[in-house]
Amino acid sequence: MSPTLSGVLAPVLTPFQANLEIDVPRFVDHCRSLLADGCSALAVFGTTSEANSLSVEERERLLLALLEAGIPPEKLLPGTGCCALPDTVRLTRAATRAGCAGVLMLPPFYYKNLSDEAVFRSFAAVIDRVADPRLRIFLYHIPNYSQVGIPLAVIQRLRKAYPEIVVGLKDSSGDFSNTRAILDNVPGFQVFVGSERYLLANLRAGGAGCITATANVNAAAIAKAFHDRTEEAQAGIDQVRIFFEQFPMIPALKAELAERRNDPAWRTVRPPLVELPAEALRRAR
Amino acid sequence: MSPTLSGVLAPVLTPFQANLEIDVPRFVDHCRSLLADGCSALAVFGTTSEANSLSVEERERLLLALLEAGIPPEKLLPGTGCCALPDTVRLTRAATRAGCAGVLMLPPFYYKNLSDEAVFRSFAAVIDRVADPRLRIFLYHIPNYSQVGIPLAVIQRLRKAYPEIVVGLKDSSGDFSNTRAILDNVPGFQVFVGSERYLLANLRAGGAGCITATANVNAAAIAKAFHDRTEEAQAGIDQVRIFFEQFPMIPALKAELAERRNDPAWRTVRPPLVELPAEALRRAR
Repeated sequence: MSPTLSGVLAPVLTPFQANLEIDVPRFVDHCRSLLADGCSALAVFGTTSEANSLSVEERERLLLALLEAGIPPEKLLPGTGCCALPDTVRLTRAATRAGCAGVLMLPPFYYKNLSDEAVFRSFAAVIDRVADPRLRIFLYHIPNYSQVGIPLAVIQRLRKAYPEIVVGLKDSSGDFSNTRAILDNVPGFQVFVGSERYLLANLRAGGAGCITATANVNAAAIAKAFHDRTEEAQAGIDQVRIFFEQFPMIPALKAELAERRNDPAWRTVRPPLVELPAEALRRAR
Repeated sequence: MSPTLSGVLAPVLTPFQANLEIDVPRFVDHCRSLLADGCSALAVFGTTSEANSLSVEERERLLLALLEAGIPPEKLLPGTGCCALPDTVRLTRAATRAGCAGVLMLPPFYYKNLSDEAVFRSFAAVIDRVADPRLRIFLYHIPNYSQVGIPLAVIQRLRKAYPEIVVGLKDSSGDFSNTRAILDNVPGFQVFVGSERYLLANLRAGGAGCITATANVNAAAIAKAFHDRTEEAQAGIDQVRIFFEQFPMIPALKAELAERRNDPAWRTVRPPLVELPAEALRRAR
């Protein structure tokens, strides 16, 4: 079994050129800087990465580009959950064969009001088709976006059916009582919170760390808070989080990078997102 | 400009083999029988078609297979709206170049709480990239699934910006006051309701017809109700609709076809859907 994943992971922002094509060199640079700043791994192709605005082929090519650029696969936790089973299988297989630490997997999210049986089968169908003992899945619970959640009963059933494969979860529900219920009821599970607001609470309850959007702009401080485990460090990173929560998160983080690097290209987002005016962050400070 | 679309369209069920691959011969047969039963066109790759459970390549290949089987492109209104702009552009371009009557386009549906500006830009970006004067878009408003709706103000703005291209809408909100507001405020728009329950009301208000799941099992009667425009015919098709609304719609329609044709293969669905037990429909009758 692969080593346990812990610490602070960034769902890496995906930069685009003016024509909305992926800007590979800026992406590779940003990945390197996040690892240098103390991220333990990179959750590329997450919600913050606008991954659901990328085609399957774009994600495949970008993963290859990262590996060719020398980013170690064991530092990668790509998002691979799509609406369509063949897409999820294809991306998951590619990540597993490349030696990634694992994958972060959304449930299929177009059809709503799914039964527990439906959610279980959706993940099981992927696992059975990828059919690779190296596969490590972190379930991605983000009901505000997917509208399809991953109930505790489904987690327990998956864990029982695939104990070596379904190894952890990212809880982006924003409801720490849900995180705590998972930690209390799923022994050995590697649980990440989706916001550093719950980092200290999660670590104290036995969690593994956080996978958080704001790591794109505050990785060093969040990584330090992970190591220090003090209320003071927690309060410091909370301030930065609260600032960015005033805005649509993804455009705001891109605007912040554009400002810091004096590189307006970073502001570009793909539809359906809309970029943040350059002055919006400055006015709020 | 292409001729106006009207009447009864079926969002065609997609049959799968036991291994969950698309069953092309059964699909072509079903398309032919729906046209023979009086459907004016086929809204392939809709919600009922489990289209969001198909990869982009699967949809491209299946469209080609239909054309090769002799289904006239002017009888096709494929669904092409995906989460990712490049996917929507690719499918829309393929349908347009093939000479399809138009496309039925979901907004991108992963990111939620979009502003009107965001929804407008999402469609505009597709239109600008496809850049083909033959393109005809029917907007697909189905907020219960997509969670991203298409507000009247966005419809009006799209209509003004692209009067020859944005020609109609399918309203699957189930809220006829929304349908009526569109008919009243968007002159010349071809408006379909997403359920035959509102067929007569829609026709009386100036609408074009319906695009309805149950056409997969009741096309002849719904087509007759479209032509007769009587309360009696409407009441008859309502009964069938109400029967199927007791169940998860897609598995129930597949189970019905499996029963009628004595062909259990029709019951198969892709995750995240779960097939309906064979006896469920029989017990309810």
